[in-house]
Amino acid sequence: MNPDLHRERDSASFDAEKLTYILDGSPERTRRRREIENMILNDPDFKHEDLNFLTRSEQYDMAVKKSAMMVKKMRDFGIADPEEIMWFKKLSLISFVEPVGLNYSMFIPTLLIQGTTAQQQKWLSPSQGLQIIGTYAQTEMGHGTHLRGLETTATYDPKTQEFILNSPTVTSIKWWPGGLGKTSNHAIVLAQLYTKGECYGLHAFIVPIREIGTHKPFPGITVGDIGPKFGYGEMDNGYLKMDNYRIPRENMLMKYAQVKPDGTYVKPVSDRLTYGTMVFVRSFLVGESARALSKACTIAIRYSLVRHQSEIQPGDPEPQILDFQTQQYKLFPLLATAYAFQFVGAFMKETYHRINVDIGQGNLNELPELHALTAGLKAFTSWTANAGIEACRMACGGHGYSHCSGLPNIYVTFTPTCTFEGENTVMMLQTARFLMKSYDQVHSGKLVGGMMSYLNDLASQRIQPQQVAAWPAVVDISSPDSLAEAYKRRAARLVETAARNLQTEMKHRKSKDIAWNLTSVDLVRASEAHCHYVVVKLFSGNLSKIDDKPIQTVLKNLCLLYALYGISQNSGDFLQGGILTESQLTQVNQRVKDLLTIIRPDSAALVDAFDFKDHTLGSVLGRYDGNVYENMFEWAKKSPLNKTEVHESYHKYLKPLQSKL
Amino acid sequence: MNPDLHRERDSASFDAEKLTYILDGSPERTRRRREIENMILNDPDFKHEDLNFLTRSEQYDMAVKKSAMMVKKMRDFGIADPEEIMWFKKLSLISFVEPVGLNYSMFIPTLLIQGTTAQQQKWLSPSQGLQIIGTYAQTEMGHGTHLRGLETTATYDPKTQEFILNSPTVTSIKWWPGGLGKTSNHAIVLAQLYTKGECYGLHAFIVPIREIGTHKPFPGITVGDIGPKFGYGEMDNGYLKMDNYRIPRENMLMKYAQVKPDGTYVKPVSDRLTYGTMVFVRSFLVGESARALSKACTIAIRYSLVRHQSEIQPGDPEPQILDFQTQQYKLFPLLATAYAFQFVGAFMKETYHRINVDIGQGNLNELPELHALTAGLKAFTSWTANAGIEACRMACGGHGYSHCSGLPNIYVTFTPTCTFEGENTVMMLQTARFLMKSYDQVHSGKLVGGMMSYLNDLASQRIQPQQVAAWPAVVDISSPDSLAEAYKRRAARLVETAARNLQTEMKHRKSKDIAWNLTSVDLVRASEAHCHYVVVKLFSGNLSKIDDKPIQTVLKNLCLLYALYGISQNSGDFLQGGILTESQLTQVNQRVKDLLTIIRPDSAALVDAFDFKDHTLGSVLGRYDGNVYENMFEWAKKSPLNKTEVHESYHKYLKPLQSKL
Repeated sequence: MNPDLHRERDSASFDAEKLTYILDGSPERTRRRREIENMILNDPDFKHEDLNFLTRSEQYDMAVKKSAMMVKKMRDFGIADPEEIMWFKKLSLISFVEPVGLNYSMFIPTLLIQGTTAQQQKWLSPSQGLQIIGTYAQTEMGHGTHLRGLETTATYDPKTQEFILNSPTVTSIKWWPGGLGKTSNHAIVLAQLYTKGECYGLHAFIVPIREIGTHKPFPGITVGDIGPKFGYGEMDNGYLKMDNYRIPRENMLMKYAQVKPDGTYVKPVSDRLTYGTMVFVRSFLVGESARALSKACTIAIRYSLVRHQSEIQPGDPEPQILDFQTQQYKLFPLLATAYAFQFVGAFMKETYHRINVDIGQGNLNELPELHALTAGLKAFTSWTANAGIEACRMACGGHGYSHCSGLPNIYVTFTPTCTFEGENTVMMLQTARFLMKSYDQVHSGKLVGGMMSYLNDLASQRIQPQQVAAWPAVVDISSPDSLAEAYKRRAARLVETAARNLQTEMKHRKSKDIAWNLTSVDLVRASEAHCHYVVVKLFSGNLSKIDDKPIQTVLKNLCLLYALYGISQNSGDFLQGGILTESQLTQVNQRVKDLLTIIRPDSAALVDAFDFKDHTLGSVLGRYDGNVYENMFEWAKKSPLNKTEVHESYHKYLKPLQSKL
Repeated sequence: MNPDLHRERDSASFDAEKLTYILDGSPERTRRRREIENMILNDPDFKHEDLNFLTRSEQYDMAVKKSAMMVKKMRDFGIADPEEIMWFKKLSLISFVEPVGLNYSMFIPTLLIQGTTAQQQKWLSPSQGLQIIGTYAQTEMGHGTHLRGLETTATYDPKTQEFILNSPTVTSIKWWPGGLGKTSNHAIVLAQLYTKGECYGLHAFIVPIREIGTHKPFPGITVGDIGPKFGYGEMDNGYLKMDNYRIPRENMLMKYAQVKPDGTYVKPVSDRLTYGTMVFVRSFLVGESARALSKACTIAIRYSLVRHQSEIQPGDPEPQILDFQTQQYKLFPLLATAYAFQFVGAFMKETYHRINVDIGQGNLNELPELHALTAGLKAFTSWTANAGIEACRMACGGHGYSHCSGLPNIYVTFTPTCTFEGENTVMMLQTARFLMKSYDQVHSGKLVGGMMSYLNDLASQRIQPQQVAAWPAVVDISSPDSLAEAYKRRAARLVETAARNLQTEMKHRKSKDIAWNLTSVDLVRASEAHCHYVVVKLFSGNLSKIDDKPIQTVLKNLCLLYALYGISQNSGDFLQGGILTESQLTQVNQRVKDLLTIIRPDSAALVDAFDFKDHTLGSVLGRYDGNVYENMFEWAKKSPLNKTEVHESYHKYLKPLQSKL
């Protein structure tokens, strides 16, 4: 092992292994996760060439191979628990991208939620075993977020009892669904349902697109890959164009809405079908933000401990670059953020499961707030992680640009999270809608609960011109709880500002919707402040639950750094509301610098505690053993351009040019 | 043409063509630039397949082909003026990356600056014609910014009158130089010079690495490609390891330092050799930041005018997405930034040429400030553009992730600018060093000049406890000049804060260097504030030079948006110094929203004025004619995965799995 890393690990103030147990939930869960990871690491079937050296077609080929292998291996290993499946896939896929992924994450769940028993009996078993490989085709080339704008049509023909599917325009071509291009033989297609001359809006249809056995597209189906992307080379995101393509009536998912054989449309009782799934996926993505940022921090911090460069005092040996304050300032706030998001991710998972039990018992009370919270936190955490991963990459100097650092891949694999499952700005505005609703509720005399309960205090301030007086006067910048209060006050102020600006616009405009658009910048800021508060609150609230004193101490410092750094980056918000004084702000800036020095000796152990295998990191810079340079040289030698000593282009273009001169 | 774009162009308040002349410098320059661009666009030899569909080896092949072609074509077309060469290369290369690029940008200039007349006679002509293809090998695997840390050695052997070159460790392997891996047959190698048992530090040596005629590496030379990177697929960044590799004494560049045949070392008179080149390259990169951000804005804004999505009022048709305030808020401040940086880039070019004349006449007075300014502005503009390009990509929703958007390529091609030619944080600290020096100078009673002259005012405030009084009291948020004053005061305050914190640390520490490191976060902030001021100042200063009233009006609004947006993003700085009041800040936020609405009708014309050819943008989303969707479908059909209807992986992995079930 690299001596620097060895020394750093030895001198940590806490036991990294115990912190791993906390992050996993228990020592037993850590044990089982590692057991599953080792199945893959020790399995020669999962060894393969570095994806970075493959062409796109080879990358796709390897991904299909792995997917097929996983189906077999999970059966062999007896892995069936959803969380364990996830551990298994995460390690075997590195970047968690697989062409058959949507079969399991969207096709089957949609079948379970929206399919009748007969439909489930017909399609479930073959799709679980990949005879049917399904995907979920919703977005179209010209239509994303706004579902009502989708143009694909499904027109019922009572004579043959079939639906006729059409992509009437270029913009209506289904575009982006994962696995649609080459892998899937079925798709659940969202289309505008027409029957008896009426349009009944979006409904879901099971559409066979390729023949089982030959995998050839059916006549009337035009299907293919949408071309290379920023990352996701191994995924065949696809397009699908349908021309008078007929499917049996039974292929409409009919658990709720129905079309009778004669074409009569039967309305669904409730249309909150996918509400729960959306909330689940978004709360899962909060955890993924934590995970992606944790990976990037692990790589950048380990490399910064191994890399020696420049000098602090002339004549001294070159220090580890993590001894530079600017490097600490780049990485430690991100490390603190990664920890903050780990706790938020765990909270979201818990809350989702708790509320899911309630929903099962018919209690939907908490669902609207959870929906609003997951939307905002999905956006808040993914934006932060997205920028943070790139900051980690750039903190690795030149080598961060090489694919051997693993960081470009982590970035391109993560960044779509800002757009899929709800574009982030749209998500923030959904949260804002709930905040405004809660604000109005408070002003009409009703109290609101949960994370928004601070809005209750706003009403009481109405009487006083200076809102400051209503809050506890002094923020203690050494107390995470007190800082959470400060964030709460900032959120309250920005919610109130947005609400007032919205009211002002409404006075000038005829339409509430136009006023909403003209206030949306303020609304997004209010949502961001609300989410920021929730994160600080959850992080500080978790500290008291930790028994191990040394771990509690180091996490408290991270929590302080997270909160204080956020204040220094948004200092105007805290000054403007009178939440902090100018002299306190000066103290905050100084305290941030002090915390960098305090956290520095524990930085290696803090990233070790995330417990990523080298295989998962996919990074020469972030290797656990720190043997960066030898391995970088070995990696480079495998570059495809090094297959021949002289590249053919020399003979084709340069030599003729040279002889002409 | 797309009807939306047509309408937008028709209704602009100014003539985009005239703004293009302003950006180019004159109508004549616009004409000549277009003439050169058309040479390439009309030349069938420059037609080629989309790089996105090629393997890395094919990408490299095509880049070499183009480089060879360019040498020929520029001769045919009689293009010799450096600026015209740049126009030519920019258009023909799309991403401005070419394997032989360093031959022209580093090898030949270094030969000219550091080579003797005899050396120039020997190497110049063959390298101009690409018989000798040279590169510049400075960075090593373990060493970047800190040149004294380089490990490669060149030991003089007086017996044979040769230098023996060695890469003594893995970390000493030359790593990253462009064109080193496969293309170059010579490299200027930086190595520690040893003669007569003494080390004399870094010197430059011309090292033949591949045999002319066969292109095979010489014995003792290990050379190759460093592997795939984040972008730059067509460039063979390389490694070079030398084992007791001998070169003649004459291959040391000896215009300044010399080694006599007997091994006697002769010191150079001055060691400011590369000062000027560094300043030139960095000032050029400021312009490149403007250019890259302008490209990204062009794509995102055109697409936002073509894309219809969602609804502002229920039941209305889907609006252009640029009608959403949040979309305007993402893009218009970046558009304003692109314009700001265009003017800064032009200023840097002018200043460089002016000072270069002075230097030629032996007047070095302005060089230190120019050096400090280029360092900081290179960092400030490249960081901003870097984040801005990604923001443009994410503002394009899902399609921004596709390579057909062109945005991923613009990003990965631009992002290394933050690291090469001086890592940005290091650059900011260089600027800070000059700021601190100027600050000290002022406090010892001497005035400072140029962009730092505001520091002179700081000293006079010393007497008063409240510095506010010394400045003009009220900022007029509708006046660009007044806003520049506000940025000046912010810069002055942050420079002073950094200087005081540095003094405080120095009282507690023995070493000034340790104190510097422990203040570096403040020092970077001070430099950023200084650069921000310079940008606002230059933008506002340019407005009065514009005769065309409609253009002056629209640019004034962009300038206001740039300045006010920056205030709202850094509001704490402006509140803390008492530069703005809380109620002014509220007005600033409102004014930013108003400006979005004001700029909206001119947005198409403002990006048209950048005058990028579709070929340069490389983007389906940013097409001038706005025919996005049809062309996206055509593009996707060419995806390599669509070459066969059924991918071979189906037969290899999925079919066997399906038949087993």
